[in-house]
Order: sequence, then C-alpha cells, then structure tokens
Amino acid sequence: MAIVVQKYGGSSVATTEKIKRVAKSVIDKKNKGYKVVVVISAMGDTTDDLIELAKGISNNPDKRELDALLATGEMISSSLLAMAIKDIGYDAISFNAFQIQLKTNGVYGKSLIEDINILPIKNALDLDKIVVVAGFQGVSDEGNLTTLGRGGSDTTAVALAVKLDAECEIYTDVDGIYSVDPRLYKNAKKIENISYEEMLELSSLGAQVMHSRSVELGQKYNIPIYVGLSCSDIKGTYIREVEEMENKPVTGLAVSDDDVSITLLDIDYDIYTLSSIFESIAARKINVDMISQTAPQNGSVNISFTIPKADLNECLEVVRAYTVKRPIIDENVTKFSIVGIGMKTTSGVAARLFRVFKENNIQVKMITTSEIRITCTINREDKLKAVELVAKEFNL
Amino acid sequence: MAIVVQKYGGSSVATTEKIKRVAKSVIDKKNKGYKVVVVISAMGDTTDDLIELAKGISNNPDKRELDALLATGEMISSSLLAMAIKDIGYDAISFNAFQIQLKTNGVYGKSLIEDINILPIKNALDLDKIVVVAGFQGVSDEGNLTTLGRGGSDTTAVALAVKLDAECEIYTDVDGIYSVDPRLYKNAKKIENISYEEMLELSSLGAQVMHSRSVELGQKYNIPIYVGLSCSDIKGTYIREVEEMENKPVTGLAVSDDDVSITLLDIDYDIYTLSSIFESIAARKINVDMISQTAPQNGSVNISFTIPKADLNECLEVVRAYTVKRPIIDENVTKFSIVGIGMKTTSGVAARLFRVFKENNIQVKMITTSEIRITCTINREDKLKAVELVAKEFNL
Repeated sequence: MAIVVQKYGGSSVATTEKIKRVAKSVIDKKNKGYKVVVVISAMGDTTDDLIELAKGISNNPDKRELDALLATGEMISSSLLAMAIKDIGYDAISFNAFQIQLKTNGVYGKSLIEDINILPIKNALDLDKIVVVAGFQGVSDEGNLTTLGRGGSDTTAVALAVKLDAECEIYTDVDGIYSVDPRLYKNAKKIENISYEEMLELSSLGAQVMHSRSVELGQKYNIPIYVGLSCSDIKGTYIREVEEMENKPVTGLAVSDDDVSITLLDIDYDIYTLSSIFESIAARKINVDMISQTAPQNGSVNISFTIPKADLNECLEVVRAYTVKRPIIDENVTKFSIVGIGMKTTSGVAARLFRVFKENNIQVKMITTSEIRITCTINREDKLKAVELVAKEFNL
Repeated sequence: MAIVVQKYGGSSVATTEKIKRVAKSVIDKKNKGYKVVVVISAMGDTTDDLIELAKGISNNPDKRELDALLATGEMISSSLLAMAIKDIGYDAISFNAFQIQLKTNGVYGKSLIEDINILPIKNALDLDKIVVVAGFQGVSDEGNLTTLGRGGSDTTAVALAVKLDAECEIYTDVDGIYSVDPRLYKNAKKIENISYEEMLELSSLGAQVMHSRSVELGQKYNIPIYVGLSCSDIKGTYIREVEEMENKPVTGLAVSDDDVSITLLDIDYDIYTLSSIFESIAARKINVDMISQTAPQNGSVNISFTIPKADLNECLEVVRAYTVKRPIIDENVTKFSIVGIGMKTTSGVAARLFRVFKENNIQVKMITTSEIRITCTINREDKLKAVELVAKEFNL
C-alpha cells in the first residue's frame, strides 16, 4: 500500500472547525487506499502569539528557550488533529520530535534535519493508524528542541516522504503555484509542473509558497511535491524534475519590495577594499543580494548593491569606514525577476525583457542573472505596469 | 551547596509580569547560596483553555492526545521562566518530561511517577544554571506523554526533591495551611507545622492546597514540604513528621458540599447483597465515601452512603437492581470533618464535637471516623454555624 505524506499549513488548521475539516480530508485519502502521514503546522497565528509572549519576557529571548516555546504550537495542533480523526472513528496517533527522534544539526531557529527514526511511524501505519507529526520541530544531539525556521513544516513533510519512500502533498491556502502573484496580475496562469530549480529561484525571490529547504530536499532525492489548496479537489502544481520543456522560456515572475539599494561613490579600486567591504557587511549577517560596479575612473569605482530594508541602518554604519562621500540610498526600488529553465536553451530572453521595458519607459537600474533567472531593479511606481507587460510578453 | 526544589503554581505565573516576579524570587534564593530547581505549572487558566480547545474537537477527547495537549501548558511556562531568568543575567535551562526522562506508570490523566533521570539536572546545576522543570507531565515506557492529574506539579516537585536529596518549597496563592478555610471562618489560624497524615486527611476532605500524592511521597521519603505564598516573606506552613504534640487534639477542620447522600431502604440483610451493591458501584468508578447501616429488622436493613454529586444519576441506575423502594436522596448535606494527630492520644474528642452540635441544635446524620479524623454529615444550612462553633471549641 502506498504511503502519502500530507502537510497542512497553519491557515488550514486555524480553528477547531478547520481541524475537523482537515481530519475528514485526511480520512478521504486513507479511504482511497493510502497509508497516511500528516505533518501539521501550528494553528493560525499561534507562532506569532508565542513570539509575542516571549517578547513580553525579554527583548532578546534566549534562543534555546524560544525554540522550546515555539515547538509547543505544533504539539498542540498535532494532538488536536489526532483527536479529531479518532472522534470520527478512525485510529490515529500524534508524534512530536522526541517521539520520532527527528534529529537536527542543533541550530536554533533554522535547523537542518539530519535523521528521523521512522520505526514508530511504520509501526503505527502497520496498525492501520493515521500518523500525525508535529512539523517545524526537531531535537538536537544534546536533546534540545530546535525549530526549522518559518515554513519549516514543509521540510518536515518532504524529509518524511524521503525516509518513508512516500508521495508528498503540501496543502496550503493557495491552490497551486502561479506564474505571477495573482494579487498583482489577475490573469496569472497556474503552473501545472515546475522544476525544483525554478521553484527555488521563485521561493528565494519572494514567492513565499514553499520553504526553500523543502524544495532542495525534494530535488536531492527526486521526490515530486504536490502543492494544492487544503480540503479541495482543485488541481494544484507539481514541483518535480521537468523532462519536457513546454517551449516556454519563462515559467514565472516574481517581484519584491523588501530591498533597498545602496550606492557607494569613489571607492578605492582594489580587490582588497572591495572584499573587505562585503566581508564587513557579511560579518553583521546582512544578506547582500545584487551587486553591480561601474568601470574604474581615476583609480576609483562606484558600487551599488541591495540589502533587506530592515538592515539599512546597520549596513550604513559598516560602510561609513570606506568612503567619506555620503552613500546614495534608494528605497524606491522593486526587485523584478523572471525565472525559467527554458532560458538555458532559449537565447534572447534578456533582450526581449529589456525591449519591453525600453518601449514602455521603464527604467532598469541594476541587473543580475543566473542560468535560469534574470533579476533587475526598477522604480517602485513602475511595478504593476512591468508585471502586466512582462506577463503578457512571456504568456505567464 | 544545598539544593532546593521550588514549585510555583499557575496563579503565580499567570502573566509575563508574574513570571518575571517569580524569576526574581528564584534568583534571590540562588543568591542565598542554594542550587535551585524550579518546577512550574501552566500559566493561569491555560490547562482549562486547552481542555476547552479539546472539547471543541470532541466530546470525549482521546486520552493519549489530551495528555499530549495538556503537557504543552507547562512546556510554555517553563521556557518562558528560563527566558526571564536569563534576561536578568543568570544562567538557566528548561527541561520537559522527555529531557529528564520523567518516567510514569503510563496512566493518562493521573499517572504516578516511577523514575527521573536527574543527570541532566545535576550537570546543569554544576554549571551554575538555575534549572526549570515543566511540572505535571511525564513519559510512559512507550514514550507517550502522560499527566499527573490536577495539582500534579506538586508531586513533580516532591519527587525531584526526593531524587536530588533537596529541600522542597511549594509556592502558591495562599500563605500557608490554615486550620479552617479562612473564607469560612475569618479567625482561622495558620498552622506552623502539620503532619503528613493530617495534611493527607485534610487534602482528601476538600482542603485543596496540595496534591495528595505529593504529601504521600513526602511522607514516604520523609521530605519536609514548605507551603507558602509566592514571592513573599510571609511565613508559611511546614508539612513534616511532627515530633512533639502541641497538646492540641484537633489540627484542622474541613467542610465539603460536593457530596450527596443516598439511603436505600429494606435491603436484604446478607453479606452478598451488601458487597454486590458496593462492587457494582465501584465498577462504575464511583467513589463511595461514608457508609452507615441500621441494625437489621425482619431480615432487612437500611443503608446510607455518600457519593460525589456528579455521579448521582449513574449511581441510581446501579442501585435500582437491589430495591423496589425509591432511594432517599439528600443533596442538602455538608460533609464536616475534624482532623488531628492528637486524637490518637486524646480521648473524648468525638464527645466534645457532638456535645457542641447537640447544644446548638445541629443535627448529625452520618458519622465515620479514622484514627485521626471524625467526619459527619450535617444539613447545609448549619455549615457556617458549625464551623464557627467547632473552630472555637478546639481553638482552630
């Protein structure tokens, strides 16, 4: 009998009524002939509420204790879901991280999963039980609770699917992956199949449907991941090894308003200065995304880069040491990206993108590319126009 | 360095502000030269709120899952307290039942503690950390979370004190054990020292200051238990082996309105019928407390007994098989008890009690006694008068 691992997100279990609905959906799957393992997130805003509680105790809560606190959210929802399934008359059992020895590398707040003892799960499945696993949490070698980071339950689900040689279904409050965020472009098309690489690029660019680590795991072990709407028959999206190109160079488009660009003027043009600047920024754990540099003039260059808005003040402190000129700060930027595995084999995608921008007076500021992605920054006010034009150009 | 185990009840940690106050109190104790282990209950009404949540899922929640759910309450409060201590600048670490392998006999909702691995606690104390333990919870041999029942954190604390050879302090929202509930008799005196036996009798009679099991454990291992007001210097009560009698035959008085008395008329007077009645009642897990029987007449007797009010309907179903006559039900009863280890050596205590009742027209219905206790039922409307008169008679 095939095993399926289903994951339900926090919005799908926000109330007891919704938990009961998920219980029915899980039982439906079992009645279709599957052994079912369910990974569950904390109810609704529980995680945020727990963080609030911790903030009421300390401005800088101890990381070990914060993880121990946050892990309770999924313990609560998993036992409630098991109760709900049993109440309908099907056997079920919940497991927390201790009970299946879900081992992590011990990093608080963003652990990686190292191993899972699937024996208790297999035993329960053999006894015809539906197994409910608390997502998001793990145990370090020292026996400390550690969490996997926001969206980490996705990764719990994929890791379990890997270990159990199971199918993997991620249920959430959207009915699949769209080529463009439907809130920005109402004609956005749902994607039937998307490759792991494309999904990873889109995830890291702000399409926050999936925890990146879960997609990486799926890719590594070649586990297809189905993403769909909770308790619904609407057809969702498969993240999988895409074999046949659909003759479409661009699969998706993502925009993000969360960055700010900083331009440093008249920086000494030598490799030591440059690496020193970015090392100093990295030492503060500030994530630099795009970097571009002008050609040197009189032994100095201008350097632009983007960082998350939240880190602006800290970053300015760091760069002050490298230039007497006031840095130019541009908060009015939108990061605009197109992603497509088809770019590997289709030339001229960048040319088409920039022609669209040029013909419509959309100014492009910085540009970076990868094999399957083109990212540029544009002015915030051009965002919706750019989304619409580019979505039409590439039939997204 | 001496070890102390302190327990703080739910009302002492009901808000983040109160948790911070407990953190300070714990640190004060450490600064007095103790190694400190803190056992903590769930915040305020958390346990009731979690039960509500479960009731929203099922009228009869699965016992395993309910225990897993309820255990989260103490995980939350213990990590918050450890955070609060660290925030003040002292080192601390929280442990849940898995982390110290607090093993139980596996009975859901009312487990007994079988063993605790104190090694992680000892190691943390040696590293100068304050240890915070989630009360009320344990793990069965099969790895299931089980809880110890209402007030079970008291028992966690005493069990830890036994294993760590430590002093034991129970902090709550009352400043000690009183001879009479101060809400019923404003001149009630605080007891400085009370024996385990007396405390056990009082606990089982409705003076719900302490979890009975914790007092039994204290008695078995001769661990003195201090009961006092949280975060306060007011002197509380020691529960301990009382060596010297204070020449006071009665230590405390307890009343309870939670029982109903049932009288069965014209029951066949043979030992098989009698044992059969009470076995049938016991089979329904109904707790029969007082029993009295009239002398046999014409081969039949009348039997009166008390049971918890909540079980009345179920009990009536059971006894219907034994008599055609309608049972007499008296819900207008108060169970009135006096307790004192001095009764063992002082005669005439019962006589004094009944003289007081007789002189004041208080009708006594049923009577049972133990070596250190006299219990009777009286009419509900005589309760306050009886409390006042008896408290004065025995100087309580």
